[in-house]
Amino acid sequence: MSNPNAPTTARTSAPPELSTEGLVLLYGSTPNGWKCTYALEILKQAGLIPGYTVCEVYLQTDEHLRLENPLQTAKMPALIDNRPDAPPVHVWESASILRYLERVYDTQKLLGFQDADLQTEMDNWIFWTQGGLGPMQGQLNHFYRYTDVKVDYAEKRYRDEVDRLYKVLDAHLAGRQYLVGDKLSYADLTAEPWVRCAFWAGMSLSPYPNVEAWHDRIEQTPVILDALKVPSQDLVTRIKNDPELEARITAAMKKRKEDAQQ
Amino acid sequence: MSNPNAPTTARTSAPPELSTEGLVLLYGSTPNGWKCTYALEILKQAGLIPGYTVCEVYLQTDEHLRLENPLQTAKMPALIDNRPDAPPVHVWESASILRYLERVYDTQKLLGFQDADLQTEMDNWIFWTQGGLGPMQGQLNHFYRYTDVKVDYAEKRYRDEVDRLYKVLDAHLAGRQYLVGDKLSYADLTAEPWVRCAFWAGMSLSPYPNVEAWHDRIEQTPVILDALKVPSQDLVTRIKNDPELEARITAAMKKRKEDAQQ
Repeated sequence: MSNPNAPTTARTSAPPELSTEGLVLLYGSTPNGWKCTYALEILKQAGLIPGYTVCEVYLQTDEHLRLENPLQTAKMPALIDNRPDAPPVHVWESASILRYLERVYDTQKLLGFQDADLQTEMDNWIFWTQGGLGPMQGQLNHFYRYTDVKVDYAEKRYRDEVDRLYKVLDAHLAGRQYLVGDKLSYADLTAEPWVRCAFWAGMSLSPYPNVEAWHDRIEQTPVILDALKVPSQDLVTRIKNDPELEARITAAMKKRKEDAQQ
Repeated sequence: MSNPNAPTTARTSAPPELSTEGLVLLYGSTPNGWKCTYALEILKQAGLIPGYTVCEVYLQTDEHLRLENPLQTAKMPALIDNRPDAPPVHVWESASILRYLERVYDTQKLLGFQDADLQTEMDNWIFWTQGGLGPMQGQLNHFYRYTDVKVDYAEKRYRDEVDRLYKVLDAHLAGRQYLVGDKLSYADLTAEPWVRCAFWAGMSLSPYPNVEAWHDRIEQTPVILDALKVPSQDLVTRIKNDPELEARITAAMKKRKEDAQQ
């Protein structure tokens, strides 16, 4: 049987240079990756985890390492928790990684809520992001940026839907500093990375002033700025400083998608 | 400002006929709705909740009630928990509703796991379904069934992706009765409803024998058969017994989408 994971399987034979101790994140510099580095860096600086290793893998540009996924699942991002007294835990799906970190390490709810109703509200927004904002902005990325086949109908469909979702977010954020309660939580860490790379989908934030202010507030938080340097400066920042990089990455991503279809 | 929720707002002025006691589910007979009725019926039959009320709303066919959402959020499905000693809780996003039921009512983990590693594995699959299988099969529904604009490229894109996801599911289910551990869990309740209406996206289950067997196993569980009758027999079963209904619902859904775009 052909490998059912083929479209997302790394295709190089470079050996994994993975730590076998503690928390190890397999990471690409994408929204789903940033959710995880945000949470890991915050928990580390708060002393809730001793540390973590990030292996940047898989984006096929000259700027990225290429590693086989040692767990053979081709999931990205993935977190491996090499526990001293038990077999490693393998966590995949970015939001599941945040849930794991909360349940196992953030028992004091630094980024969650002790209050049951706020916890419910946080879940609402996390699932809204995972089932709506992320997948739909991902489709817009495809039809706006990656495909060489121009499909006006599909691009408009996803642009309209992403616009609708940003408006929902903007209305909710009116008069609020953060998505839930009055502190940064896993809900913000889940949604903000998508907003952060709105430009990649050809979206401007200016029609959504509350979203833009919230995004700026989060991005300028010192611990988030630190997280964006793990393991190397994130791609959005690098693209802003090197316009040619955008074209190089777009070409590499297109090629990756074409290769995956062969 | 125009209503950012407009594309999913019910557009009739029929008064809500909602219970104001206990657990009330605003529901349409769709995969996201079945997740919730599955869980509610199982928890009820196990004596973990005293009961629940389901208001079927919003699908614009002759067979459906049309109610304004009393919470003005246009979220579907949505669960309202009218607590005796506190303000009502409003939960939306189907997977968030399951999380809420687990946290508040299923403290003995009838549909979850006490074991931490199984809990992690369940989260992996729930987020995989919510961020992948559901949104992508939804896009295939659109390009296969709803749009009058024929877009071969987009239909193929989503059919290939859904096929890839079903293969992932099929490989995982080889030798297993359920997605996680050895019992029915929230992971199954989240994913099976999409598989149940694969035909709506023009997908056959026969290339995925493990998925098909798992689906049959779940669907033939007595409590699931009971859940599919709440509040009236589910649409998939009705369509199987009345082929003309499929065309009527397809036409109504197309009209609903056209109206939403105006």
